[in-house]
Amino acid sequence: MKKPYISNNVIRRLPRYLRKLDELSAEGVERISSGELGQRTGLTPSQIRQDFSCFGAFGQQGYGYNVDSLRGEIAGILGVDRGYTLILMGAGRIGHTLIENLNFSRLGFRLLGAFDVRPELIGSSIGEVSVQDAGGAGDFIRENRVDIAILSTDRAHAQTAADWLIAGGIRAIWNFTEQEIDPGDSGVLVESIHFSDSLLTLSYHLVKGEEES
Amino acid sequence: MKKPYISNNVIRRLPRYLRKLDELSAEGVERISSGELGQRTGLTPSQIRQDFSCFGAFGQQGYGYNVDSLRGEIAGILGVDRGYTLILMGAGRIGHTLIENLNFSRLGFRLLGAFDVRPELIGSSIGEVSVQDAGGAGDFIRENRVDIAILSTDRAHAQTAADWLIAGGIRAIWNFTEQEIDPGDSGVLVESIHFSDSLLTLSYHLVKGEEES
Repeated sequence: MKKPYISNNVIRRLPRYLRKLDELSAEGVERISSGELGQRTGLTPSQIRQDFSCFGAFGQQGYGYNVDSLRGEIAGILGVDRGYTLILMGAGRIGHTLIENLNFSRLGFRLLGAFDVRPELIGSSIGEVSVQDAGGAGDFIRENRVDIAILSTDRAHAQTAADWLIAGGIRAIWNFTEQEIDPGDSGVLVESIHFSDSLLTLSYHLVKGEEES
Repeated sequence: MKKPYISNNVIRRLPRYLRKLDELSAEGVERISSGELGQRTGLTPSQIRQDFSCFGAFGQQGYGYNVDSLRGEIAGILGVDRGYTLILMGAGRIGHTLIENLNFSRLGFRLLGAFDVRPELIGSSIGEVSVQDAGGAGDFIRENRVDIAILSTDRAHAQTAADWLIAGGIRAIWNFTEQEIDPGDSGVLVESIHFSDSLLTLSYHLVKGEEES
């Protein structure tokens, strides 16, 4: 069954809704109105109602939304229930930071392995996995049907490492190298976190505030 | 002088254009067409022309855009020329990763100090600054007119640390705590990098690809 069309802007907000609903569920809240959810998320109630209606979740007048069922709906759309598997490519500082700060299993993902080219890192531990020689990443991806690679090598090796991953049959690359990755015509998904883009967005809003005041 | 209205979607793309134009400038490229820039950015030429026209940059038929002047225009809009100042609040692993991986001065920012509550970290070095007691952050912000704080404490202390920064007169918080920060009615800007949101967006596209195939 195909899901209804959901615009990219709505998709970008779904993880935020999921985080809020997780919090509400942990607090024991059973239902919530779009107004209350708006206060928690900084979005307008009408925006929230419109977003949720995209996937057929309609709040009831005087009741609002059921927190757990809405949470389950959004988790399903985002694939949290799929058990997607991950490896880390590049076991330096950023890699360690990510593995230690993100609770992958809580998010529904499984970290299967970590890889690096540096001999001094091979055999060391990172989270619950140990670092293997990056030369074996392709075979590992094929044998374990790995879905996603976290790419956290240095910039100079980013595209080469991405090419290895793609040749190994990876389906998606989560890119932290601050380098643009070209998946060619492989169809591999690339999602990049560009720290500097975020800082420059903030800077833009500072400039704008100065000009308006 | 007020700048023309630029939509949030365009603003989000400006840092990406700036990165590409930096690369082109470094390669010695003097002019570029929207078609070539499209190939480099993965955006359509018409999207690019439309985005640039928002701030009055119109390419010339048969010539395209002048790389350096377009770069200067976008850098100006993003405030790269303003010399905004930064401090780091929370000198743990994420803080170190950011300071070591981001070239703030190349981006036009100045890192003035770092702060933490943990006695064992105070006095240690991070990048070119040394870690000071977080209790002194407010005075430091006031005395040095700090614009932006990078918030990288643990989740449990995120809002408390943000409240200190806001009381000290910070103008913007760049939030890496994976915790939502409430600036209250302070008017302080908050820009958050939620790693898990990015992963879930990737996961969504994996699900979608499976359903379409």
